[in-house]
Amino acid sequence: MSHLTTARHSVDALTLEDKAALTSGAAYWVTKEPAGVPVVTMEDGPHGVRHQSAGDTPHMGIAPSEPATCFPPAVAVAQTWDPELVERLGEALGREARSFDTDVLLGPGVNIKRDPRCGRNFEYFSEDPLLSGQIGSAWVTGLQRSGAGASLKHFAANNQELDRMRSSSDIDERPLREIYLRTFERVVREAKPWTVMASYNKLNGTPATENHWLLTEVLRGEWGFDGAVVSDWGAVGDRVRALRAGTDLQMPGGDLGADAEVVAAIEDGSLDPAVLDQSVQRMLDLAERAEQARIAHPDTTFDEAEHHALAREVAGRAIVLLKNDEQVLPLGGTGTVAVVGPFATSPRIQGGGSSRVIPTRTDVPFDELRALAPDVDLRAFEGYRHDGTDAADLRQQAVEAAKLADTAVVFLGLTAADEAEGTDRTHINVPAEQIQLLRAVAAAQPKTVAVLIHGGVIALAEIAESVPAVLDATILGQAGGGAIADVLLGRVNPSGRLAETAPVRLEDAPSYLTYPGDQLHVRYGEGIFVGYRGYDHLRREVAFPFGHGLSYTQFEYADLQLVATPDGIRVEVAVRNTGSVDGREVIQLYVSKEGGVQRPPMELRGYRSVGIKAGETAHVTITIPRQDLAYWDIGLHRWVVEGGEYGIHAAASSRDIRRSGTVRLDGDAVRRPFTEESTVAELLRDPIGAAAIADIMGRNGNTQSVASQELGIDANKSGMRIPIGRLRTLSAGRYLPKAQLTDLLQRLNASRVESAQKGNRNF
Amino acid sequence: MSHLTTARHSVDALTLEDKAALTSGAAYWVTKEPAGVPVVTMEDGPHGVRHQSAGDTPHMGIAPSEPATCFPPAVAVAQTWDPELVERLGEALGREARSFDTDVLLGPGVNIKRDPRCGRNFEYFSEDPLLSGQIGSAWVTGLQRSGAGASLKHFAANNQELDRMRSSSDIDERPLREIYLRTFERVVREAKPWTVMASYNKLNGTPATENHWLLTEVLRGEWGFDGAVVSDWGAVGDRVRALRAGTDLQMPGGDLGADAEVVAAIEDGSLDPAVLDQSVQRMLDLAERAEQARIAHPDTTFDEAEHHALAREVAGRAIVLLKNDEQVLPLGGTGTVAVVGPFATSPRIQGGGSSRVIPTRTDVPFDELRALAPDVDLRAFEGYRHDGTDAADLRQQAVEAAKLADTAVVFLGLTAADEAEGTDRTHINVPAEQIQLLRAVAAAQPKTVAVLIHGGVIALAEIAESVPAVLDATILGQAGGGAIADVLLGRVNPSGRLAETAPVRLEDAPSYLTYPGDQLHVRYGEGIFVGYRGYDHLRREVAFPFGHGLSYTQFEYADLQLVATPDGIRVEVAVRNTGSVDGREVIQLYVSKEGGVQRPPMELRGYRSVGIKAGETAHVTITIPRQDLAYWDIGLHRWVVEGGEYGIHAAASSRDIRRSGTVRLDGDAVRRPFTEESTVAELLRDPIGAAAIADIMGRNGNTQSVASQELGIDANKSGMRIPIGRLRTLSAGRYLPKAQLTDLLQRLNASRVESAQKGNRNF
Repeated sequence: MSHLTTARHSVDALTLEDKAALTSGAAYWVTKEPAGVPVVTMEDGPHGVRHQSAGDTPHMGIAPSEPATCFPPAVAVAQTWDPELVERLGEALGREARSFDTDVLLGPGVNIKRDPRCGRNFEYFSEDPLLSGQIGSAWVTGLQRSGAGASLKHFAANNQELDRMRSSSDIDERPLREIYLRTFERVVREAKPWTVMASYNKLNGTPATENHWLLTEVLRGEWGFDGAVVSDWGAVGDRVRALRAGTDLQMPGGDLGADAEVVAAIEDGSLDPAVLDQSVQRMLDLAERAEQARIAHPDTTFDEAEHHALAREVAGRAIVLLKNDEQVLPLGGTGTVAVVGPFATSPRIQGGGSSRVIPTRTDVPFDELRALAPDVDLRAFEGYRHDGTDAADLRQQAVEAAKLADTAVVFLGLTAADEAEGTDRTHINVPAEQIQLLRAVAAAQPKTVAVLIHGGVIALAEIAESVPAVLDATILGQAGGGAIADVLLGRVNPSGRLAETAPVRLEDAPSYLTYPGDQLHVRYGEGIFVGYRGYDHLRREVAFPFGHGLSYTQFEYADLQLVATPDGIRVEVAVRNTGSVDGREVIQLYVSKEGGVQRPPMELRGYRSVGIKAGETAHVTITIPRQDLAYWDIGLHRWVVEGGEYGIHAAASSRDIRRSGTVRLDGDAVRRPFTEESTVAELLRDPIGAAAIADIMGRNGNTQSVASQELGIDANKSGMRIPIGRLRTLSAGRYLPKAQLTDLLQRLNASRVESAQKGNRNF
Repeated sequence: MSHLTTARHSVDALTLEDKAALTSGAAYWVTKEPAGVPVVTMEDGPHGVRHQSAGDTPHMGIAPSEPATCFPPAVAVAQTWDPELVERLGEALGREARSFDTDVLLGPGVNIKRDPRCGRNFEYFSEDPLLSGQIGSAWVTGLQRSGAGASLKHFAANNQELDRMRSSSDIDERPLREIYLRTFERVVREAKPWTVMASYNKLNGTPATENHWLLTEVLRGEWGFDGAVVSDWGAVGDRVRALRAGTDLQMPGGDLGADAEVVAAIEDGSLDPAVLDQSVQRMLDLAERAEQARIAHPDTTFDEAEHHALAREVAGRAIVLLKNDEQVLPLGGTGTVAVVGPFATSPRIQGGGSSRVIPTRTDVPFDELRALAPDVDLRAFEGYRHDGTDAADLRQQAVEAAKLADTAVVFLGLTAADEAEGTDRTHINVPAEQIQLLRAVAAAQPKTVAVLIHGGVIALAEIAESVPAVLDATILGQAGGGAIADVLLGRVNPSGRLAETAPVRLEDAPSYLTYPGDQLHVRYGEGIFVGYRGYDHLRREVAFPFGHGLSYTQFEYADLQLVATPDGIRVEVAVRNTGSVDGREVIQLYVSKEGGVQRPPMELRGYRSVGIKAGETAHVTITIPRQDLAYWDIGLHRWVVEGGEYGIHAAASSRDIRRSGTVRLDGDAVRRPFTEESTVAELLRDPIGAAAIADIMGRNGNTQSVASQELGIDANKSGMRIPIGRLRTLSAGRYLPKAQLTDLLQRLNASRVESAQKGNRNF
């Protein structure tokens, strides 16, 4: 952005003290106002506004908040796989923020769900960076269109709660770029958030708030971020180092004495004044942005009913129909239904922590079912107790009722106490007494439906084996009760898709071995094999795969057409709704590539949520941008698109591929010189290199056969991978002596011009 | 060692050119002889001597070699779990080396079997560093007692063959110390090998031959290594950098011009003359050692028959009886036995590569069976072909014969072409046609025994399901045929134990995701969870666990007694042979510990192979040295024994625990100061800290309840892990301001004296 700062607020006009003041908060939720710079208000969320009317309090800034629409939390939002819908959600959130005079709503959280145990996974979107990034971009775009700024968080690699304030996420360059930073990169480039929030943790040993490489070289230098970097609340350990790294605003501020440290550092020369000025300029820009937004969106109000309806729409779109044998769902409009479980009458709508919103109202699933299905005889039974105390009597009642009913609907899951910000889970099981109840009900009533309430992924295998139908409702916000009723009764045909793999066992998670780290270092040892990338590479059975979700209708895929263009791959596919009801399909595109660098079997590279009427066919075109096909090259430290054949798979889930084809791409023009570490095989792919190898072989022809005979090995095979610099040392100087090698390398590299290479690995 | 150099050969008496000459070989297998320094001869092995009588050849030094006893390769040797036996083997190897005037026999290889695919795993001992280290120590001790030096290889972290000459093994500090270096450390400290061989690969980005930290700081500085570091053949890229790091001898030498580079580097000042002198001194020491050994062991010869008998003894002790349902084995002395498979008549005795030995003779299993069981009607059938061509006719013959026989013995496995130095495997399957044959034979003959021939671990689940009895014969050297006959017929009661886990699927291996690396970097992402440490932590089913092996008799464990001493833990256990034949049990001690740093569920900390006569009881005492209980602390960069309760498990395998007990140890005296990163919970464990926290809570008492109520979290739980330095920033300066914090830390650390701490984590 161009600097919006008015003449009234220029860096030069500020005193050193004012400058220092501007780079830390006044207290919890607002910036300071030196020299009349407008205050910027930031508030927690992000699936609603946690506006504390009481303002600051002594209790680490926590106070009762005013009611606001509690939209579905991130876990649910991602399951819509629909950025357009999410953009509307973002707009609504922006209106609510503006209505509270909140300038920046602290979110969205786009961290990758690396491990099922992370207590804050309900605040994050997905295990996949494309899905997380596109949902995040849409969220920010919508929010900021309504005049509230986003704070993209938690930057970066804050993938667990345990020891989040002191542990280091140790990540190799490629997974860091391809998995953990890629989501942030997409949102920053596409949606230009007003702020980015530097996280609590260390990244490869350096605190995020003090990480110059992360905040300045990558975020600003490479991605062109033009906003302000705000620290997570309490994340700054050393204010001067944080400023130097690119953290513009320490939050909360208050009585920390840190502004004085900044002044002192400038005065004693240990902090470059230009560094401070740059942060001050960014804070002035932020204040200006906020002021402009206030002017452009004056007196914003929001219609609670309208927003509640939107919350219900999004929630309905988020619910995943995991299983529906013999079409137990949707429920009919008559008969008797036993509704079991405390969640049916006392809903859980969100997770615990800084994101907790006081809702404007809360839909109760049982009541909503009753309202929508007046002719159904609905009866509620507790069935079990959340406190785990003996509930044989409740179970017995529920089982009896289920037996007599036409259908049973059992609500199961986790309570807020089971998962929250600040702590991680140690297992992913639903309490045993709930499973016991479910099995008992299912034994009595074959038409039993399980409705699952949870923020993080849970062990689903046993649940799914027990009953013919399962709805994954996660946590859906204040209108979730209505949305569940909509889906159960078929008013909404489910179209949610899992954004995170449900493993059979927690131990199957690719991150299992190294989570939660050792001695305050967390080695992300699974590398790029996060989520389905790992389960697939390990060929490990899962309870339900990434991207899975059923519908009350069926879809057929046909006519996959692939066209390589200079900008990427245009994919066309025809999807027909072959059932008798209207529905919505999420067409997923996975890409595979053999050879070259190590890769997961398949990676999500595109998707589209499309409503298709019964009997109709949608002709869907999805373009995979060329840059989305790149891998991160750790030798060149850049993105590279490999040349060669790519497999494109149009799929209904990551393990339900419907149509596949291949397309050949030219690789990026990459100059990768021959060195002493280039192998014999690599030389043989170049005419000059091949001639040199042939010459050596000609003069010393039978070494390979001697080696094969005497050592009992395939010397030709192992010889191919010998670095050419080692031919000399291995042969005691006979082959390719130093002068010859130098000359050969020179000739090889001189002949190699920068050009787009054809085919795999022909760099 | 003290410097043995005679006056005749002192560093000072040598010219610069002579010095340079002494630090590289004359050519392939010998050092140079400047100024009359005695030549040192080094030859490949190490399970026999590969003595090339032709001397150097143009073919990368490879020429026909003379016959020598081909003892069992390392894979088999480790399965004896018997260092005393291995010491005798080492002595025999030393005699053979001396008989060929070989000064240094290039081995043993003690690298950890990280991944089943490593093509050279047959040359290594185990996935466990204790077992590898003790077997390696015994080998070196025996060898050097006979007057031949060892070359402990491949130092370090050379755990795959693929791209071994250019890839970097990227390993975090703790697994590097606890798993990959620990074996070398034990052998260096206990057995004092004459030489250590620096490996081809890079370690954390630096070539092993150029790795000063590895070769000088750790190997010499910490472990007290007093011998010479020899490069693996062709492993030196930059001679001057290698010298500087601590590589004393570049091998092979020859026409490389590298000596001149050393001279030039000294002359232009880029290489410190003291560095060169140090390496020269070590080479003089090595020459002197070799000369002393020649004097002490003149005219050594060896008795081929005696060594063959020893080879048979070791091989018999190495065979693992994996399965023996309904006591199919041992075979009786009469009846008809169909012996199937080419390995029965054309045995495979070793692996391919530099370790390949020309045997003095080779036992053929079928012939040995015939010799030992003259009254058994033995018939041999090919059954399948190694080249994988259709063998329906051979299979049919074998099945017909098996049906008519009383028992069938089927030899299966891998050929030398399937696994060798220089290449890795891509799968662990036995060829499908062999499985097909085995199933067909087993269907015709219920009493079918599988005998497995292979160097690396193979997929055993399907084989084991197909037949009632399985013998794991790996590759056993030249007397393996006799040893197999001994075990099949019950002349030797099997006592081998697996030194490597046999997984159900290759993908189950903890290293699977990151092997073989990406873009020439191999992240050892499983950390300390190598082999059974990983399978156990993942609670993953295995085909056969580490330490597994049956006997023709049974053993009962009783009376486990544990005594903590200042030096470790003394363990006593009574093991009774409850069967009717004499046998040998390998008593294994695994140690577990809850709490504190992350650990595998159990780790092998001791074992003992004991022969026990039928009906008798052995009272076995094993002492676990205290230092073997230590973990590597990455904050302090040292070994630390944690205080607390240790579980001690006397076991017949890693998954067959017979008796368990616990013992409490005081932890090491460790000074670990309180810092801003110490948590509230950590402070609460100290009286001064607890008072400070109580004071804060007293003045701001209801923050936790406000937070719990408003955010819906257990603020007490998450608050425990807040670093005390963050209390200030989180509270906007209200709690524990900087001056107070500094004072508190000072008081805390002043009161903390160095003392042996009691209990877990009370550092």
